[in-house]
Amino acid sequence: MNNNRIINVGVLGATGAVGQRFIQLLEKHQWFRVVAVGASSNSVGKLYRDAVHWLLPTDIPVEIGQLKVVGCDDPSHQAFASCQIVFSALDSNVATEIEEKFRVAGKAVFSNSKNHRYDSDVPIMVCSVNPEHSEVILKQKAYQQNKGFIITNPNCSTTGIVVALKPIANQFGLHEVVAFTMQSISGAGYPGVPSLDISNIFYFFIVGNVVPFIGEEEEKIEIETKKILGGLDCNNVKSEYFSNYPVMVSAHTNRVPVVEGHTICLSIKLKQSATIQQVKDCLENYYPKELQSLQLPTFNGNPIVVLEQNNRPQPKLDVNKGNGLKVSVGRIRDGSTSPGESSFDLRMTLLVHNTVLGAAGSSIQNAEYCIAKGYIQ
Amino acid sequence: MNNNRIINVGVLGATGAVGQRFIQLLEKHQWFRVVAVGASSNSVGKLYRDAVHWLLPTDIPVEIGQLKVVGCDDPSHQAFASCQIVFSALDSNVATEIEEKFRVAGKAVFSNSKNHRYDSDVPIMVCSVNPEHSEVILKQKAYQQNKGFIITNPNCSTTGIVVALKPIANQFGLHEVVAFTMQSISGAGYPGVPSLDISNIFYFFIVGNVVPFIGEEEEKIEIETKKILGGLDCNNVKSEYFSNYPVMVSAHTNRVPVVEGHTICLSIKLKQSATIQQVKDCLENYYPKELQSLQLPTFNGNPIVVLEQNNRPQPKLDVNKGNGLKVSVGRIRDGSTSPGESSFDLRMTLLVHNTVLGAAGSSIQNAEYCIAKGYIQ
Amino acid sequence: MNNNRIINVGVLGATGAVGQRFIQLLEKHQWFRVVAVGASSNSVGKLYRDAVHWLLPTDIPVEIGQLKVVGCDDPSHQAFASCQIVFSALDSNVATEIEEKFRVAGKAVFSNSKNHRYDSDVPIMVCSVNPEHSEVILKQKAYQQNKGFIITNPNCSTTGIVVALKPIANQFGLHEVVAFTMQSISGAGYPGVPSLDISNIFYFFIVGNVVPFIGEEEEKIEIETKKILGGLDCNNVKSEYFSNYPVMVSAHTNRVPVVEGHTICLSIKLKQSATIQQVKDCLENYYPKELQSLQLPTFNGNPIVVLEQNNRPQPKLDVNKGNGLKVSVGRIRDGSTSPGESSFDLRMTLLVHNTVLGAAGSSIQNAEYCIAKGYIQ
Amino acid sequence: MNNNRIINVGVLGATGAVGQRFIQLLEKHQWFRVVAVGASSNSVGKLYRDAVHWLLPTDIPVEIGQLKVVGCDDPSHQAFASCQIVFSALDSNVATEIEEKFRVAGKAVFSNSKNHRYDSDVPIMVCSVNPEHSEVILKQKAYQQNKGFIITNPNCSTTGIVVALKPIANQFGLHEVVAFTMQSISGAGYPGVPSLDISNIFYFFIVGNVVPFIGEEEEKIEIETKKILGGLDCNNVKSEYFSNYPVMVSAHTNRVPVVEGHTICLSIKLKQSATIQQVKDCLENYYPKELQSLQLPTFNGNPIVVLEQNNRPQPKLDVNKGNGLKVSVGRIRDGSTSPGESSFDLRMTLLVHNTVLGAAGSSIQNAEYCIAKGYIQ
Repeated sequence: MNNNRIINVGVLGATGAVGQRFIQLLEKHQWFRVVAVGASSNSVGKLYRDAVHWLLPTDIPVEIGQLKVVGCDDPSHQAFASCQIVFSALDSNVATEIEEKFRVAGKAVFSNSKNHRYDSDVPIMVCSVNPEHSEVILKQKAYQQNKGFIITNPNCSTTGIVVALKPIANQFGLHEVVAFTMQSISGAGYPGVPSLDISNIFYFFIVGNVVPFIGEEEEKIEIETKKILGGLDCNNVKSEYFSNYPVMVSAHTNRVPVVEGHTICLSIKLKQSATIQQVKDCLENYYPKELQSLQLPTFNGNPIVVLEQNNRPQPKLDVNKGNGLKVSVGRIRDGSTSPGESSFDLRMTLLVHNTVLGAAGSSIQNAEYCIAKGYIQ
Repeated sequence: MNNNRIINVGVLGATGAVGQRFIQLLEKHQWFRVVAVGASSNSVGKLYRDAVHWLLPTDIPVEIGQLKVVGCDDPSHQAFASCQIVFSALDSNVATEIEEKFRVAGKAVFSNSKNHRYDSDVPIMVCSVNPEHSEVILKQKAYQQNKGFIITNPNCSTTGIVVALKPIANQFGLHEVVAFTMQSISGAGYPGVPSLDISNIFYFFIVGNVVPFIGEEEEKIEIETKKILGGLDCNNVKSEYFSNYPVMVSAHTNRVPVVEGHTICLSIKLKQSATIQQVKDCLENYYPKELQSLQLPTFNGNPIVVLEQNNRPQPKLDVNKGNGLKVSVGRIRDGSTSPGESSFDLRMTLLVHNTVLGAAGSSIQNAEYCIAKGYIQ
Repeated sequence: MNNNRIINVGVLGATGAVGQRFIQLLEKHQWFRVVAVGASSNSVGKLYRDAVHWLLPTDIPVEIGQLKVVGCDDPSHQAFASCQIVFSALDSNVATEIEEKFRVAGKAVFSNSKNHRYDSDVPIMVCSVNPEHSEVILKQKAYQQNKGFIITNPNCSTTGIVVALKPIANQFGLHEVVAFTMQSISGAGYPGVPSLDISNIFYFFIVGNVVPFIGEEEEKIEIETKKILGGLDCNNVKSEYFSNYPVMVSAHTNRVPVVEGHTICLSIKLKQSATIQQVKDCLENYYPKELQSLQLPTFNGNPIVVLEQNNRPQPKLDVNKGNGLKVSVGRIRDGSTSPGESSFDLRMTLLVHNTVLGAAGSSIQNAEYCIAKGYIQ
Repeated sequence: MNNNRIINVGVLGATGAVGQRFIQLLEKHQWFRVVAVGASSNSVGKLYRDAVHWLLPTDIPVEIGQLKVVGCDDPSHQAFASCQIVFSALDSNVATEIEEKFRVAGKAVFSNSKNHRYDSDVPIMVCSVNPEHSEVILKQKAYQQNKGFIITNPNCSTTGIVVALKPIANQFGLHEVVAFTMQSISGAGYPGVPSLDISNIFYFFIVGNVVPFIGEEEEKIEIETKKILGGLDCNNVKSEYFSNYPVMVSAHTNRVPVVEGHTICLSIKLKQSATIQQVKDCLENYYPKELQSLQLPTFNGNPIVVLEQNNRPQPKLDVNKGNGLKVSVGRIRDGSTSPGESSFDLRMTLLVHNTVLGAAGSSIQNAEYCIAKGYIQ
């Protein structure tokens, strides 16, 4: 447990869209203080407030704005000296090596990047879903003979999906899930970042439009969901610590002209039968005991809000539930409207704030958990 | 076959959103000439151009604009005297009785309203899908001892779904379909029409938003799809002429901020196995022989356009394919990205123009078919 | 001054869009407690939470949600007995008489409706602009021989305009103003309210569109701006207490697909010359002494935020500045880009939150001011 | 006059947004046939259909799609050998030199790029406004001792403004104009093109937003309007052939979430007084005699459509008037709603299709004019 000690942290990729969200969420954090901001070479040496093209409706935090931007490639830079923790919002074309460097240098790396998600000793962690997966970092530490480790959090849409599925998986078991997403543009990256690929030019034409494709998104949902809901065996002799949850997962991913918030429809086949009311109850009462006792600064009660009105959740009305850290779930109903018209037991619609819980917010909650568990001294 | 004879037609509910689309599509129709425009009492007596709040980007047709609006409740009004055909865009709270009156008066009624869709002797017809269902009108005629009959066309999203499913059902059989819709606002009705219900007020807030609910839409998709793809037996002794196609159909329907065009993702479980290429081929080669020979004025080749780029179809780019009368189908791919992750064989995304093929356009094609088949003399 | 006394208030038209904003802003108000909610007859008798179609992203306030809705036409209803203040969000087709009834009944009426704005003894008041106009209520009280009075606040776009113009008028004088507005849809009313007129049906088509017309809006801007910036002479023998500020004002008003926040471009001709820096300074330093000393609960410093980046203000980034109670002003520059190309001295762009400062928020600030000044005992 | 001779043309910058519009508009052109498509080095050698990321709702023209893309820097490339005309949609960072090369090589260059607009011997031409400015190309030809010349067309918003102002300037004279634009995103360039500057990243956030700034746009409107409406004296001894029209022009430019069509409000001070009806008449009757007699393929009657409904023009309804080649003008009314409240005589709102008449379409009409006038043999 943290005795009101302030922990210095760094943010890698601090000028990008997710990096800015880290800076915003960390501004008045109860435990963390941002002392290092890393970005690409053309920003190095500038004050953060001058280097960033700030895109959030709140002001640039005054103190962080006065930090001088440093490079991301050198963990031994004195700016990182006092940081036990670095948060990574690095672009995927550089994250693999940079995050590895920081791990080797003994830092606890909490990454929103996809690069290390599928490593055999790196968890994809959502604090309210699979915090026990963090135990695998002992393997990373052992291997590297220092304190460094990497914990990732999933893809934005996967985050919403696993939060909504976890209580159902626990109580009734999952057999198959089909996910249909309507994703906002704020997860689309933005022009000018190095990773901009040509498929992105279509997002520019999203006004009044739907683009029925998001690169790699369907694969991520299928793969990550099963790892997150799956088991961990740190003693596995083949070093295959993670085992997938045995559920079939397929996805249709779409971009829609919404600013923030991914809306996702799920058709779900259970292992055990359940009434709609039982499903609602299990979602409304989900609040793991361990999390209740740890009292993490940004973790505030049940991570799920169940909405009863049939036209909810809506991005405009519900995206900021729990300061963007809760998943809203609505339209919980049978698999089809007429009985027997579906092999699925349930349909529901969920909403996740893609740049808060679906990105920077989860990294921060994961760090809070590791602090509270004593993984970082 | 039509020998360039011009057939006089009337339009009921001519001032509403779908009514306007009828007027637009009929303006220069090769066979039909609008001579009667019916609307509610507060429009009666005005010139059409003065009564209508025209919402389409083309101009009000000059000649039709000069017609005097008549009431919809009296088929014996002299304006309808020369009309063998009336197209109905009536509001559902009045369509049942008015359409019945016109049938009794001997008119061929082609209706976009939902009211008579589920009648046992009324087809829900899409010209490229189940034109043979039109034969049931002989039962209507017989019963009523006159020439009148009603043919409906389905709900806008159902129209797109059945056009895309029909060739697949023919060739491989369907076991289960899950449909997920992202529907444009132009199908939402508009404020001021009598049927405006309170759920509509949320559509007003659709800018930058998603509303995960459309009243009755999921039921319609589930029910209508099976009737349209199903069989017809005009000799059924219980007068249950239609038999449902044996497929499970469930739906998630959503409203998105798009102006025109419903985008629909489908997960499909087949009866017989098929390769992706075989499915593409069967869609690309779908063009019923009878339709080829009939040479209907607005029916122009295969009703389906298969798109290969992975980010298509898009409403902005594809909604007007075939003047809004073709369904675009893209992203035809396996049921899941990794093998074995889905009980479905196929995923695909389709786009249908909801007020052209999905509404007035289908009514007009149905009328063309009935003329060509000699059902209307 | 208020000694932490809690003042009971009522809200008229509490279920509509502006009414909901009143309820939201009053939920945890330091001085006010909502004890009466009035709405139209079809809501009377229901709990507020059941009667309202809540459209705001925050939850319905729990306590207010449990109030039973009462009618608006009877100020003697016991629900209003303890209310010295009523806030009015009444529809304009009923506001004239209902607000008058409440005034006669001795209530202090703070109204967002347009109906009494042009009365000779009713001020159009924006707390940071013309609080001294509140003095005219003594005339109302005298005339009516009781404590009741009406204070209105202006049209949403006018509110933003007068806040930005007031410091400039004070320091340099105004000769002419041309205002161009890009107004969000949340000020457009919504379908289902009684006042819905036919021009509104076009707002339904606002996705990806601009509608270059808003009924009566240009007149309101022209007329209200001059009354608000003008003088008050409570001793005028002809009872013409208000005198217009001598400035020419014309407007172009447009509806754009933005959810909240009206963006307004101004071209301004001054009476005295000023540098751009002087104009910025006068805006940045505007904070009337009286308001500083009164310490109103929701009035927090300079009501204007000056933005330096050339692509600001933007609704998405700036609409919630000061909790929606501050006006953002940016792009303060010469009247033309090349010298001598305009008869105007200045151009600028402002942003006002149309349903907070531009509606319910101003009514509440006006009430706070009247409390602090002792107008309500 | 053209005797049905087909003229071979090339398109420079053919893969970009404006380049695609050229290709689309030239597909079935009565006089022109595209035989050469130039683009940047990474497209050279590919078939056009493979090199382009086609963004228009019509299909890629089949024949043009099969052309092999060539570089833009070598006018002597055999692909251009048969081209008397090249259309330029080149990016501004390369247009200056490339267009010059093609001029020197004897080509007639019709350019949508800004680079040569302000040259003293290059006209900024809109076919319906100042076709007589084309005469200045004789100076270019003389100077260069060959047939080559450059004719530019203006910035998209300026194009709409000058078409609407020209008849008024002719008949009543202009004293001052204030223009306020609400510009669609299709004129914003798109990510991935070399000229992408950082201000563009904000356009990515245009969903539900307004960005009150467009780089250089206000300057362009101010400068170009006066050159286009101004005079030409080919005998000027100082070679200052163009003289500005003496009108003050200032602008406020804004980006709004509209797909196509720039909506522009104008406040206009006339030199001579005019009634609103006189202004409408002069706009409705504008059709220069010379253009009537020349019968250009894409020039079809009055370039202006006057709309009477007070909520028009709207992008969604009016952008394609005259196939995107006509300017819609509506809300023609007094300078202020109450008399005497403005120093302006008129207000109006216009709409121009920014990538058709406002870009490629004007270049093509200019070329048609030069053919018809015999400037190109």
